[in-house]
Amino acid sequence: MTKAPVGILGATGMVGQRFIQLLESHPWFEITWLAASERSAGRTYADAANWKLATPLPANIASLIVSGAAPAQCTSPPPRMIFAALDSHAAAEIEPAYVAAGCIVISNSSALRMNPHVPLLIPEVNPDHLALLNQQASRTLNGGYIITNPNCSATGLAISLAPLHRAFGVERVFVATMQAVSGAGYPGVASLDILGNVIPFIAGEEEKLETEIQKMLGSMRDGEIEPAPITVSAHCNRVPVEDGHTESVSIKLSTPATKEDVIAAWQAFRGGSRHLHLPSAPAQPIIYTELPDRPQPRLDIYAGRGMSTVIGRLRPCNLFDWKFTVLSHNTIRGAAGAAILNAELLKAKGLLA
Amino acid sequence: MTKAPVGILGATGMVGQRFIQLLESHPWFEITWLAASERSAGRTYADAANWKLATPLPANIASLIVSGAAPAQCTSPPPRMIFAALDSHAAAEIEPAYVAAGCIVISNSSALRMNPHVPLLIPEVNPDHLALLNQQASRTLNGGYIITNPNCSATGLAISLAPLHRAFGVERVFVATMQAVSGAGYPGVASLDILGNVIPFIAGEEEKLETEIQKMLGSMRDGEIEPAPITVSAHCNRVPVEDGHTESVSIKLSTPATKEDVIAAWQAFRGGSRHLHLPSAPAQPIIYTELPDRPQPRLDIYAGRGMSTVIGRLRPCNLFDWKFTVLSHNTIRGAAGAAILNAELLKAKGLLA
Amino acid sequence: MTKAPVGILGATGMVGQRFIQLLESHPWFEITWLAASERSAGRTYADAANWKLATPLPANIASLIVSGAAPAQCTSPPPRMIFAALDSHAAAEIEPAYVAAGCIVISNSSALRMNPHVPLLIPEVNPDHLALLNQQASRTLNGGYIITNPNCSATGLAISLAPLHRAFGVERVFVATMQAVSGAGYPGVASLDILGNVIPFIAGEEEKLETEIQKMLGSMRDGEIEPAPITVSAHCNRVPVEDGHTESVSIKLSTPATKEDVIAAWQAFRGGSRHLHLPSAPAQPIIYTELPDRPQPRLDIYAGRGMSTVIGRLRPCNLFDWKFTVLSHNTIRGAAGAAILNAELLKAKGLLA
Amino acid sequence: MTKAPVGILGATGMVGQRFIQLLESHPWFEITWLAASERSAGRTYADAANWKLATPLPANIASLIVSGAAPAQCTSPPPRMIFAALDSHAAAEIEPAYVAAGCIVISNSSALRMNPHVPLLIPEVNPDHLALLNQQASRTLNGGYIITNPNCSATGLAISLAPLHRAFGVERVFVATMQAVSGAGYPGVASLDILGNVIPFIAGEEEKLETEIQKMLGSMRDGEIEPAPITVSAHCNRVPVEDGHTESVSIKLSTPATKEDVIAAWQAFRGGSRHLHLPSAPAQPIIYTELPDRPQPRLDIYAGRGMSTVIGRLRPCNLFDWKFTVLSHNTIRGAAGAAILNAELLKAKGLLA
Repeated sequence: MTKAPVGILGATGMVGQRFIQLLESHPWFEITWLAASERSAGRTYADAANWKLATPLPANIASLIVSGAAPAQCTSPPPRMIFAALDSHAAAEIEPAYVAAGCIVISNSSALRMNPHVPLLIPEVNPDHLALLNQQASRTLNGGYIITNPNCSATGLAISLAPLHRAFGVERVFVATMQAVSGAGYPGVASLDILGNVIPFIAGEEEKLETEIQKMLGSMRDGEIEPAPITVSAHCNRVPVEDGHTESVSIKLSTPATKEDVIAAWQAFRGGSRHLHLPSAPAQPIIYTELPDRPQPRLDIYAGRGMSTVIGRLRPCNLFDWKFTVLSHNTIRGAAGAAILNAELLKAKGLLA
Repeated sequence: MTKAPVGILGATGMVGQRFIQLLESHPWFEITWLAASERSAGRTYADAANWKLATPLPANIASLIVSGAAPAQCTSPPPRMIFAALDSHAAAEIEPAYVAAGCIVISNSSALRMNPHVPLLIPEVNPDHLALLNQQASRTLNGGYIITNPNCSATGLAISLAPLHRAFGVERVFVATMQAVSGAGYPGVASLDILGNVIPFIAGEEEKLETEIQKMLGSMRDGEIEPAPITVSAHCNRVPVEDGHTESVSIKLSTPATKEDVIAAWQAFRGGSRHLHLPSAPAQPIIYTELPDRPQPRLDIYAGRGMSTVIGRLRPCNLFDWKFTVLSHNTIRGAAGAAILNAELLKAKGLLA
Repeated sequence: MTKAPVGILGATGMVGQRFIQLLESHPWFEITWLAASERSAGRTYADAANWKLATPLPANIASLIVSGAAPAQCTSPPPRMIFAALDSHAAAEIEPAYVAAGCIVISNSSALRMNPHVPLLIPEVNPDHLALLNQQASRTLNGGYIITNPNCSATGLAISLAPLHRAFGVERVFVATMQAVSGAGYPGVASLDILGNVIPFIAGEEEKLETEIQKMLGSMRDGEIEPAPITVSAHCNRVPVEDGHTESVSIKLSTPATKEDVIAAWQAFRGGSRHLHLPSAPAQPIIYTELPDRPQPRLDIYAGRGMSTVIGRLRPCNLFDWKFTVLSHNTIRGAAGAAILNAELLKAKGLLA
Repeated sequence: MTKAPVGILGATGMVGQRFIQLLESHPWFEITWLAASERSAGRTYADAANWKLATPLPANIASLIVSGAAPAQCTSPPPRMIFAALDSHAAAEIEPAYVAAGCIVISNSSALRMNPHVPLLIPEVNPDHLALLNQQASRTLNGGYIITNPNCSATGLAISLAPLHRAFGVERVFVATMQAVSGAGYPGVASLDILGNVIPFIAGEEEKLETEIQKMLGSMRDGEIEPAPITVSAHCNRVPVEDGHTESVSIKLSTPATKEDVIAAWQAFRGGSRHLHLPSAPAQPIIYTELPDRPQPRLDIYAGRGMSTVIGRLRPCNLFDWKFTVLSHNTIRGAAGAAILNAELLKAKGLLA
């Protein structure tokens, strides 16, 4: 099988680097095109990027010439499918331009996530939301369209809620996050701000978490998404952790469920795309641990090669029904890995043609 | 004025060291007696303790000979008033023995906090709970009695809730903590467990937080404490911070209150002991900051010499009424400083006679 | 006594903030003028600066309007004496302009440190180098002149070597530093680069350390400084520490000295300016600790209010004569405090007239 | 090929866990026996150990019953070959007992490293030192013998010096280490001691570094090792890094060598055991990086699956000839991986029979 050529927009940033790392030996996709800001355009990737991952930069990527980010600045024609890891301001302008040019944009940005025509997608959670693509006018015209994956702090939470919402209904969710610094990109959080410290604020994060959950767990009705009637209240904090978002969660269910019921729902969860055998899909989307002090970023973020969500400490909540801790790798499951899995879903569904 | 002699039980631990640091130039009290575990007994304090604070060990303390912890092991007679910084197992056995011997024990331990005859005291919050001392049989006999201060994670929360509970009624509290390693004593948390990590579990901590709030905010009725009808749900986490517990809080009030009402209640709060001018009482028990990303341990724990509670980020909660972040110094306001302030209250009320 | 008005160039940066903190209650100086980059000019200091210190921003400073940095951009006339905390590129251009305008510039920058006419000054070490001021042409004309303090990593080392060089002669110095992130300013080192990591490189630092030691320990001859014949080899590393540079040092002496001789030289050291009773001078410039695992940044950087150099672990060296560890607070003794002490020396010597 | 059964003494500690992790899919060896302290004896490994690694505990190991550590406490007979990860006090007593019982002990402990009859072995550096085994009396009698690998801080240094010593002669070495907390085992370093801190002392470490280098780089003469005439002066520091020892090194050579000569010697180095194709041997024992700020623990410790030594920043030294930075994974290349590679060498040489 010939691999499909793919591009990466925002290739030099932290998420861009994860895309390159995760796609290194991908069975279906091959990186043929990289784009980044004007500062990087025209240079080799090795020269333009400040590689920050612990695995070596793949040699074939190192020598690729980086293109400018906007379609007009492209020094080489973009491939049909593009992974986009732009900040939201740039994304709002640039991503639609690529769609207009006929590209399929797999976006990690928040710019268009809440657009009613754009799927906000987790293959295990809401693959049926792909039906929204019929709403994207541009798709009809030239085949260009866009899909998005959720915010890094919403991903693990959405996965942990999905099987419970289906089985028992989820009505209310309290969540307090402890988020890793890699979520802020590079250079991102200054060391003087976070060494031995907690920062109880991440701009825009609480709003994203509160609304994205409703959209993702919503249902398709008449070609539109009806948001799930789940009220979420989020407290977002930054902590001195490199990778991995940890979240303290309390939930109120519509139907009573025992501790065993809840754990069984998590352990049985395989997601709506399991029969497609997507290469990046973890064997178990959710791993529940009985250890009393887990999950922990240092020990658990690489479960399922960083694609499994690890849950622990399920116990009764004085206010709602249950409380638990959820952990998810923020730049793999919460960003680059999420987008790649979405692209795999598109391919498996024949939507890349 | 002659200073009252005081002793410290558990003098070599982290909280014991804070007692020594905070009492160094105290206007009312003077340390004359130190006790610790058998390993330390008979040695000078300088030799027995592994001093971990950034200010120097006071010279007059360095040369004191450490006594054994149990009354039977005392090599020198204990003074009338003793600050106790024992772990709860030791405290359960040793503290009552000192009370029986006629001592006033100012305890930082959890062992007797929820005992119905023992005040769980914060001078600004519930000084009227001192009336419980009438219930302590031993007091009637030989003048010995015991008072306690709350758990380090409950202190800042209780202070932040006290003026709101009085003004508007607090019904429900969701709290997720991010607690410093010094709360676990020394050696406490292993560096391999916490460097770049979050541990979502602290044994017994959530239960303490949930019940101590009810007792402290409860009211005296017929000589007993009627717990406040406040339902608390706590999630306790350890983070790689040296000192300072940060807490994400959502609250449901009985009576509607605007943002201005809540902030005004906090800023006006001086507490029920303000007229006593206790030396360790901060000018403002609660400081509200308008800065968008505060409070932070690194920047705010020494507000009011570590005795003020700093609150920020008051904003509406989707589920309850309001949410905010509260920060408190865990080994000062949450332990040694709390006990010293309690002792000052006793003295100002004439209860040390 | 009326306090002398002083200004701060580069007032919003980390060292600028330390100047403000340390000068808050200074007996001789009063801040009346602040300048920073164009972005800050015209705003109040509270508005322009991102205050990062754990003590509150003094109220009288908060409301001062920040001037532009270059003399031509000054919205209010600079005072006679200016503390400068500019980066070296800006300093190279701006500092001479203030000198030309008749100001006395007390500079923390590296730009002019090695200029043969500019004293590189530590009051305890080389107060006689003030004689260089006679060489500064501008001083003759309008009274403007400049003095500098050493690099933050050179300060503690110079102090530790000074009494040994005088007593025994120092010929060779091997030094490996472990430097705090605050030395890189704000935002400075990215958290992703330093959390749980060591960066074995700081641009230009090794060269500064190697040459500044020679100049500071050099002697005046015919109105010029003859560099000390000390060969220094430096290895500079960044570590995840907030404040405090720790250095592993080996030295070769000209004359044999016992361990007792070396410690006695350190403990007796008061410095050439002791009789002037400068307000910021520590009682002991050097504190030698016998504890086996000290000095440590967390425990020792505030010795002498951050102005003492703490030394420990003196032991024989297989290659040279002795090895030891030295610690110095990099933004107090190594930057703002150093400059203030220098200004105090100028005043005590009558050089501010 | 049948895999050889191997045991692990001290199986529950940090190095014991690394042995289990690294041997999980080993082509030659299979773990069949685990022993640990009395507290663990009789329990399953899953129950006895507090697994701290980020990869899951292998299922076949989880259910193994842990034996007591001393031969007399063995509940199951030990296999012929045993990897030993005991602390040095226990090792001094227990390891010889296993040798006496006819076992081959591959020790990571310091207890017998400097014994003149015991090889202190790095396959790439001194495989000829295996000739010492002829000196071990016990070997003659019952086939039991012992080999050791060096201290974790000596390993990377020895490898970096080996090709230079052979090519140009190394006479003097200054080394200042910045060592990871995992080197101290678990619980090891308390978080309160190392968060945001440097500890300039590790008991016994400097002496080990200074003497082990001489033994490893020494030559066999008349059946004995003549230590290399290399004078080493070490400064050992602990830093808040999880894994990876970074070292600042200055060296004096016997014969002049250019920068190109030195780098070429490193890059050409394959070691004396390269023709044996040992499974754990890295393709390149030494990787030299031209990046200006490398090696760094966070980015480079897993080079060669944790078995390569990464060197950078080669530059002239004012005092000696050259200075550079060397990094080595302390619990892989510096402990468990080192011992496994040694065992592979024994097998390849036919010494396990």
